[in-house]
Amino acid sequence: MSLESPAAAERAFYTAFEQGSVDAMMAVWADRPDITCVHPLGSMLIGRQAVRESWLQIFLDASPRLFEIETVSTLYSPETAVHTVYETITIPPNGPRFPPIIATNAYRRIAGRWYMVLHHASPFAAPEDDAGSPMIRH
Amino acid sequence: MSLESPAAAERAFYTAFEQGSVDAMMAVWADRPDITCVHPLGSMLIGRQAVRESWLQIFLDASPRLFEIETVSTLYSPETAVHTVYETITIPPNGPRFPPIIATNAYRRIAGRWYMVLHHASPFAAPEDDAGSPMIRH
Repeated sequence: MSLESPAAAERAFYTAFEQGSVDAMMAVWADRPDITCVHPLGSMLIGRQAVRESWLQIFLDASPRLFEIETVSTLYSPETAVHTVYETITIPPNGPRFPPIIATNAYRRIAGRWYMVLHHASPFAAPEDDAGSPMIRH
Repeated sequence: MSLESPAAAERAFYTAFEQGSVDAMMAVWADRPDITCVHPLGSMLIGRQAVRESWLQIFLDASPRLFEIETVSTLYSPETAVHTVYETITIPPNGPRFPPIIATNAYRRIAGRWYMVLHHASPFAAPEDDAGSPMIRH
């Protein structure tokens, strides 16, 4: 698995997600006690054990998934990268296409390789009707 | 307005939000074309004009708001800071207390001061029943 750049780490993350492989998934995450993961509408999960258990639960549903990732926003500094992306998940070959998810993914450079330290995913309402229009209530 | 640290920038952000001041709010955001803002269930807003307009819309509702912020996760590097927090909003003095929001806030050091470059806020379902338990479907 290549983690030579934030983009490579992001590919490895979504490949592990598509494959439903907890080991491949956790190899993308940094070995730090403060890694942080928020699944859509879920609570904040901190640390490798909580993050790993969440992926085990998600991967219990072994349906194949394909991701289309549109990386819209990137922020780079020498040690940290933050991407905000639209994730569109489809179930191949002709299964449902779920509404897009917005995810913020942060990566940290550790010993020359880039590891995920944060994944914050959240649902995105009514993209057809609401593009560019924020909710009034925060 | 003091932006001498990520924590100071975060205080300035939530103070501007409580005050409903677009000028104070936009003074916290970096003067960059790639600043990124996601309001709960909203789309991804990029750039100062889109971000400013979203706050104008939110602040049309001039009800006073008070924020309680619990900063759970922090990631620091010399140029970038990422905080993930629970936001609990109440309407004083005895108004509703909204369910918590999870927000990822990223700050960038520019000319010695820290400015917001990303705010990604999302709803958090059923905290009483679901603490620590992620959704199965991503």
